[in-house]
Amino acid sequence: MSGLIRAVRPGDEVELTAMIHELAEFESATADCTVTETQLAEALFGPQPTVHGHLAEVDGRAAAGALWFRNFSTWDGVAGIHLEDLFVRPQFRRRGLARALLARLARECVDRGYTRLTWAVLDWNVDAIALYESVGGRPQTEWITYRVSGPDLLELAGGV
Amino acid sequence: MSGLIRAVRPGDEVELTAMIHELAEFESATADCTVTETQLAEALFGPQPTVHGHLAEVDGRAAAGALWFRNFSTWDGVAGIHLEDLFVRPQFRRRGLARALLARLARECVDRGYTRLTWAVLDWNVDAIALYESVGGRPQTEWITYRVSGPDLLELAGGV
Repeated sequence: MSGLIRAVRPGDEVELTAMIHELAEFESATADCTVTETQLAEALFGPQPTVHGHLAEVDGRAAAGALWFRNFSTWDGVAGIHLEDLFVRPQFRRRGLARALLARLARECVDRGYTRLTWAVLDWNVDAIALYESVGGRPQTEWITYRVSGPDLLELAGGV
Repeated sequence: MSGLIRAVRPGDEVELTAMIHELAEFESATADCTVTETQLAEALFGPQPTVHGHLAEVDGRAAAGALWFRNFSTWDGVAGIHLEDLFVRPQFRRRGLARALLARLARECVDRGYTRLTWAVLDWNVDAIALYESVGGRPQTEWITYRVSGPDLLELAGGV
Protein backbone atom coordinates (compact mmCIF):
# COMPACT_ATOMS: atom_id res chain seq x y z
CA MET A 1 0.00 0.00 0.00
CA SER A 2 1.31 3.43 -0.95
CA GLY A 3 -0.43 6.17 0.94
CA LEU A 4 -0.95 7.76 4.34
CA ILE A 5 -3.98 6.90 6.49
CA ARG A 6 -4.98 9.57 8.99
CA ALA A 7 -8.00 10.68 11.03
CA VAL A 8 -9.95 13.46 9.33
CA ARG A 9 -9.60 17.09 10.39
CA PRO A 10 -11.57 20.29 9.72
CA GLY A 11 -11.44 21.12 6.04
CA ASP A 12 -11.59 17.46 4.96
CA GLU A 13 -15.38 17.74 4.69
CA VAL A 14 -14.88 19.23 1.22
CA GLU A 15 -13.20 16.14 -0.25
CA LEU A 16 -15.33 13.75 1.81
CA THR A 17 -18.59 15.30 0.63
CA ALA A 18 -17.37 15.07 -2.95
CA MET A 19 -16.47 11.41 -2.43
CA ILE A 20 -19.91 10.62 -0.93
CA HIS A 21 -21.61 12.07 -4.01
CA GLU A 22 -19.23 10.13 -6.27
CA LEU A 23 -20.13 6.93 -4.40
CA ALA A 24 -23.86 7.70 -4.66
CA GLU A 25 -23.42 8.03 -8.42
CA PHE A 26 -21.62 4.66 -8.53
CA GLU A 27 -24.50 3.12 -6.53
CA SER A 28 -27.16 4.79 -8.75
CA ALA A 29 -28.48 6.67 -5.74
CA THR A 30 -27.84 10.31 -6.62
CA ALA A 31 -31.46 11.25 -5.88
CA ASP A 32 -31.05 10.07 -2.27
CA CYS A 33 -27.74 11.85 -1.76
CA THR A 34 -28.22 15.38 -0.50
CA VAL A 35 -25.45 15.75 2.09
CA THR A 36 -23.63 19.12 2.06
CA GLU A 37 -20.16 20.14 3.21
CA THR A 38 -21.74 22.19 6.02
CA GLN A 39 -23.74 19.21 7.28
CA LEU A 40 -20.75 16.92 7.20
CA ALA A 41 -18.49 19.46 8.94
CA GLU A 42 -21.06 19.76 11.75
CA ALA A 43 -21.46 15.99 12.00
CA LEU A 44 -17.69 15.38 12.11
CA PHE A 45 -16.40 18.41 14.01
CA GLY A 46 -19.39 19.98 15.80
CA PRO A 47 -19.90 19.95 19.58
CA GLN A 48 -21.67 16.56 19.40
CA PRO A 49 -20.05 14.53 16.62
CA THR A 50 -22.32 11.91 15.07
CA VAL A 51 -19.78 10.40 12.66
CA HIS A 52 -16.01 9.89 12.47
CA GLY A 53 -13.69 9.54 9.53
CA HIS A 54 -10.34 8.52 8.13
CA LEU A 55 -8.68 9.59 4.91
CA ALA A 56 -6.06 7.95 2.72
CA GLU A 57 -3.78 10.42 1.00
CA VAL A 58 -1.51 9.73 -1.96
CA ASP A 59 0.99 12.46 -2.79
CA GLY A 60 -1.05 14.84 -0.64
CA ARG A 61 -4.28 14.15 -2.52
CA ALA A 62 -7.45 12.70 -0.97
CA ALA A 63 -7.49 9.25 -2.55
CA ALA A 64 -9.88 7.26 -0.34
CA GLY A 65 -12.06 7.74 2.72
CA ALA A 66 -13.97 5.94 5.43
CA LEU A 67 -16.84 7.32 7.51
CA TRP A 68 -17.95 5.35 10.55
CA PHE A 69 -19.78 5.44 13.87
CA ARG A 70 -19.79 3.39 17.04
CA ASN A 71 -22.35 0.63 17.46
CA PHE A 72 -23.11 -1.73 20.35
CA SER A 73 -23.68 -5.44 20.71
CA THR A 74 -26.14 -6.52 23.37
CA TRP A 75 -24.76 -10.06 23.01
CA ASP A 76 -21.32 -9.29 24.47
CA GLY A 77 -22.12 -5.85 25.93
CA VAL A 78 -19.28 -4.20 24.04
CA ALA A 79 -19.16 -1.42 21.45
CA GLY A 80 -17.93 -1.86 17.89
CA ILE A 81 -17.29 0.17 14.77
CA HIS A 82 -19.78 0.32 11.92
CA LEU A 83 -18.23 1.51 8.68
CA GLU A 84 -20.96 3.47 6.95
CA ASP A 85 -19.07 4.43 3.78
CA LEU A 86 -15.81 3.32 2.21
CA PHE A 87 -14.73 4.88 -1.08
CA VAL A 88 -11.63 4.77 -3.21
CA ARG A 89 -11.47 7.23 -6.08
CA PRO A 90 -11.17 5.39 -9.41
CA GLN A 91 -7.68 6.70 -10.25
CA PHE A 92 -6.37 5.41 -6.90
CA ARG A 93 -7.73 1.87 -7.07
CA ARG A 94 -5.69 -1.35 -6.92
CA ARG A 95 -3.15 0.11 -4.47
CA GLY A 96 -4.54 -1.50 -1.33
CA LEU A 97 -6.15 1.66 0.04
CA ALA A 98 -9.50 0.04 0.88
CA ARG A 99 -7.74 -2.80 2.69
CA ALA A 100 -5.53 -0.29 4.52
CA LEU A 101 -8.57 1.68 5.71
CA LEU A 102 -10.29 -1.51 6.90
CA ALA A 103 -7.09 -2.51 8.71
CA ARG A 104 -6.90 0.91 10.37
CA LEU A 105 -10.46 0.61 11.64
CA ALA A 106 -9.76 -2.94 12.87
CA ARG A 107 -6.79 -1.46 14.77
CA GLU A 108 -9.09 1.25 16.24
CA CYS A 109 -11.40 -1.56 17.42
CA VAL A 110 -8.60 -3.51 19.06
CA ASP A 111 -7.11 -0.41 20.72
CA ARG A 112 -10.52 0.57 22.16
CA GLY A 113 -11.44 -2.94 23.29
CA TYR A 114 -14.21 -3.23 20.69
CA THR A 115 -15.08 -6.70 19.40
CA ARG A 116 -16.46 -6.06 15.91
CA LEU A 117 -16.04 -4.13 12.70
CA THR A 118 -19.16 -4.20 10.52
CA TRP A 119 -20.36 -2.68 7.25
CA ALA A 120 -22.91 -3.34 4.51
CA VAL A 121 -22.37 -3.87 0.79
CA LEU A 122 -24.74 -3.92 -2.18
CA ASP A 123 -25.17 -7.51 -3.35
CA TRP A 124 -24.08 -6.73 -6.93
CA ASN A 125 -20.78 -5.12 -5.91
CA VAL A 126 -18.70 -8.24 -6.54
CA ASP A 127 -15.32 -6.48 -6.49
CA ALA A 128 -16.00 -5.09 -3.02
CA ILE A 129 -17.36 -8.44 -1.82
CA ALA A 130 -14.18 -10.23 -2.96
CA LEU A 131 -12.11 -7.79 -0.90
CA TYR A 132 -14.38 -8.13 2.13
CA GLU A 133 -14.13 -11.92 2.04
CA SER A 134 -10.32 -11.64 1.81
CA VAL A 135 -10.02 -9.55 4.97
CA GLY A 136 -12.00 -11.99 7.12
CA GLY A 137 -15.44 -10.46 6.68
CA ARG A 138 -18.34 -12.87 7.22
CA PRO A 139 -21.70 -12.15 5.52
CA GLN A 140 -24.58 -12.03 7.99
CA THR A 141 -26.96 -13.49 5.43
CA GLU A 142 -29.60 -14.63 7.93
CA TRP A 143 -30.29 -11.03 9.02
CA ILE A 144 -32.61 -8.67 7.13
CA THR A 145 -32.28 -4.95 7.81
CA TYR A 146 -35.52 -2.98 8.02
CA ARG A 147 -35.87 0.78 7.76
CA VAL A 148 -38.70 3.22 8.45
CA SER A 149 -38.24 6.71 7.03
CA GLY A 150 -40.12 9.59 5.42
CA PRO A 151 -43.91 9.69 5.80
CA ASP A 152 -43.92 6.20 7.34
CA LEU A 153 -41.66 7.45 10.15
CA LEU A 154 -43.96 10.39 10.84
CA GLU A 155 -47.01 8.13 10.86
CA LEU A 156 -45.38 5.64 13.23
CA ALA A 157 -44.25 8.48 15.50
CA GLY A 158 -47.79 9.81 15.59
CA GLY A 159 -48.93 6.60 17.25
CA VAL A 160 -47.24 7.55 20.55
CA MET B 1 -51.69 -0.93 24.19
CA SER B 2 -51.75 -1.28 27.97
CA GLY B 3 -48.44 -0.32 29.52
CA LEU B 4 -46.11 2.56 30.22
CA ILE B 5 -43.12 3.29 27.96
CA ARG B 6 -40.25 5.13 29.63
CA ALA B 7 -36.52 5.75 29.17
CA VAL B 8 -34.41 3.35 31.23
CA ARG B 9 -32.83 4.40 34.53
CA PRO B 10 -30.13 2.96 36.78
CA GLY B 11 -31.27 -0.37 38.16
CA ASP B 12 -33.06 -1.36 34.96
CA GLU B 13 -29.90 -3.16 33.82
CA VAL B 14 -31.02 -6.14 35.89
CA GLU B 15 -34.24 -6.76 33.96
CA LEU B 16 -32.67 -5.72 30.64
CA THR B 17 -29.77 -8.15 31.01
CA ALA B 18 -32.24 -10.93 31.83
CA MET B 19 -34.28 -10.03 28.74
CA ILE B 20 -31.20 -10.05 26.49
CA HIS B 21 -30.36 -13.57 27.66
CA GLU B 22 -33.98 -14.64 27.15
CA LEU B 23 -33.83 -13.26 23.59
CA ALA B 24 -30.54 -15.05 22.92
CA GLU B 25 -32.19 -18.29 23.97
CA PHE B 26 -35.09 -17.62 21.59
CA GLU B 27 -32.57 -16.96 18.79
CA SER B 28 -30.52 -20.10 19.67
CA ALA B 29 -27.49 -17.92 20.41
CA THR B 30 -26.89 -18.49 24.11
CA ALA B 31 -23.21 -19.32 23.48
CA ASP B 32 -22.68 -15.85 21.99
CA CYS B 33 -24.50 -14.04 24.78
CA THR B 34 -22.17 -13.13 27.64
CA VAL B 35 -23.35 -9.64 28.62
CA THR B 36 -23.49 -8.97 32.36
CA GLU B 37 -25.51 -6.52 34.44
CA THR B 38 -22.31 -4.62 35.27
CA GLN B 39 -21.38 -4.24 31.60
CA LEU B 40 -24.84 -3.07 30.64
CA ALA B 41 -25.00 -0.59 33.54
CA GLU B 42 -21.69 0.91 32.42
CA ALA B 43 -22.80 1.04 28.77
CA LEU B 44 -26.13 2.69 29.63
CA PHE B 45 -25.26 4.91 32.58
CA GLY B 46 -21.46 5.30 32.62
CA PRO B 47 -19.61 8.53 31.79
CA GLN B 48 -19.59 7.69 28.06
CA PRO B 49 -22.83 5.84 27.26
CA THR B 50 -22.60 3.54 24.25
CA VAL B 51 -26.23 2.42 24.21
CA HIS B 52 -29.64 3.78 25.21
CA GLY B 53 -32.83 2.07 26.22
CA HIS B 54 -36.56 2.18 26.79
CA LEU B 55 -38.72 -0.11 28.90
CA ALA B 56 -42.39 -1.00 28.74
CA GLU B 57 -43.92 -1.68 32.12
CA VAL B 58 -47.21 -3.44 32.80
CA ASP B 59 -48.49 -3.20 36.37
CA GLY B 60 -45.01 -2.09 37.43
CA ARG B 61 -43.29 -5.13 35.87
CA ALA B 62 -40.68 -4.99 33.11
CA ALA B 63 -42.65 -6.42 30.19
CA ALA B 64 -40.67 -5.34 27.13
CA GLY B 65 -37.51 -3.45 26.28
CA ALA B 66 -35.63 -1.74 23.48
CA LEU B 67 -31.89 -1.03 23.33
CA TRP B 68 -30.63 1.32 20.62
CA PHE B 69 -27.82 3.57 19.49
CA ARG B 70 -27.44 6.50 17.12
CA ASN B 71 -26.29 5.86 13.57
CA PHE B 72 -25.53 8.22 10.68
CA SER B 73 -26.45 8.36 7.01
CA THR B 74 -23.84 9.80 4.69
CA TRP B 75 -26.58 10.08 2.04
CA ASP B 76 -28.56 12.80 3.81
CA GLY B 77 -25.94 13.76 6.40
CA VAL B 78 -28.33 13.18 9.30
CA ALA B 79 -28.27 10.84 12.28
CA GLY B 80 -30.81 8.10 12.89
CA ILE B 81 -31.69 5.48 15.47
CA HIS B 82 -30.64 1.85 15.11
CA LEU B 83 -32.67 -0.48 17.29
CA GLU B 84 -30.26 -3.20 18.33
CA ASP B 85 -32.63 -5.32 20.42
CA LEU B 86 -36.39 -5.39 20.87
CA PHE B 87 -37.89 -7.96 23.21
CA VAL B 88 -41.31 -8.65 24.64
CA ARG B 89 -41.52 -11.22 27.39
CA PRO B 90 -43.80 -14.12 26.35
CA GLN B 91 -46.46 -13.49 28.99
CA PHE B 92 -46.82 -9.88 27.81
CA ARG B 93 -47.19 -10.53 24.08
CA ARG B 94 -50.16 -9.53 21.90
CA ARG B 95 -50.73 -6.28 23.81
CA GLY B 96 -49.06 -3.97 21.31
CA LEU B 97 -45.90 -3.42 23.38
CA ALA B 98 -43.47 -4.00 20.48
CA ARG B 99 -45.39 -1.59 18.28
CA ALA B 100 -45.53 0.96 21.12
CA LEU B 101 -41.75 0.77 21.59
CA LEU B 102 -41.18 1.19 17.84
CA ALA B 103 -43.55 4.16 17.85
CA ARG B 104 -41.70 5.70 20.78
CA LEU B 105 -38.37 5.41 18.96
CA ALA B 106 -39.93 6.87 15.80
CA ARG B 107 -41.08 9.79 17.97
CA GLU B 108 -37.52 10.16 19.33
CA CYS B 109 -36.29 10.33 15.71
CA VAL B 110 -38.80 13.00 14.74
CA ASP B 111 -38.15 15.09 17.85
CA ARG B 112 -34.36 14.99 17.24
CA GLY B 113 -34.61 15.70 13.50
CA TYR B 114 -33.41 12.18 12.62
CA THR B 115 -34.58 10.71 9.34
CA ARG B 116 -34.52 6.94 9.93
CA LEU B 117 -35.28 4.16 12.35
CA THR B 118 -33.53 0.90 11.45
CA TRP B 119 -33.16 -2.58 12.90
CA ALA B 120 -32.35 -6.13 11.76
CA VAL B 121 -34.41 -9.29 12.07
CA LEU B 122 -33.59 -12.97 11.60
CA ASP B 123 -35.16 -14.16 8.34
CA TRP B 124 -37.10 -17.01 10.03
CA ASN B 125 -38.79 -14.74 12.58
CA VAL B 126 -42.03 -14.43 10.62
CA ASP B 127 -44.09 -13.02 13.50
CA ALA B 128 -41.65 -10.15 13.97
CA ILE B 129 -41.44 -9.55 10.20
CA ALA B 130 -45.24 -9.29 9.96
CA LEU B 131 -45.18 -6.60 12.65
CA TYR B 132 -42.28 -4.74 11.01
CA GLU B 133 -44.08 -4.67 7.65
CA SER B 134 -47.21 -3.33 9.37
CA VAL B 135 -45.40 -0.34 10.91
CA GLY B 136 -43.96 0.83 7.58
CA GLY B 137 -40.62 -1.00 7.76
CA ARG B 138 -39.02 -1.66 4.37
CA PRO B 139 -36.58 -4.58 4.03
CA GLN B 140 -33.19 -3.52 2.67
CA THR B 141 -32.78 -6.81 0.82
CA GLU B 142 -30.10 -5.61 -1.60
CA TRP B 143 -27.66 -4.93 1.25
CA ILE B 144 -25.48 -7.64 2.82
CA THR B 145 -23.98 -6.94 6.24
CA TYR B 146 -20.40 -8.09 6.77
CA ARG B 147 -18.67 -8.52 10.10
CA VAL B 148 -15.05 -9.09 11.15
CA SER B 149 -14.54 -10.25 14.74
CA GLY B 150 -12.42 -12.52 16.89
CA PRO B 151 -9.08 -13.74 15.50
CA ASP B 152 -9.92 -12.28 12.07
CA LEU B 153 -10.22 -8.81 13.62
CA LEU B 154 -6.85 -9.14 15.33
CA GLU B 155 -5.24 -10.36 12.13
CA LEU B 156 -6.71 -7.50 10.09
CA ALA B 157 -5.64 -4.99 12.75
CA GLY B 158 -2.12 -6.36 12.61
CA GLY B 159 -1.85 -5.28 9.00
CA VAL B 160 -1.64 -1.58 9.96
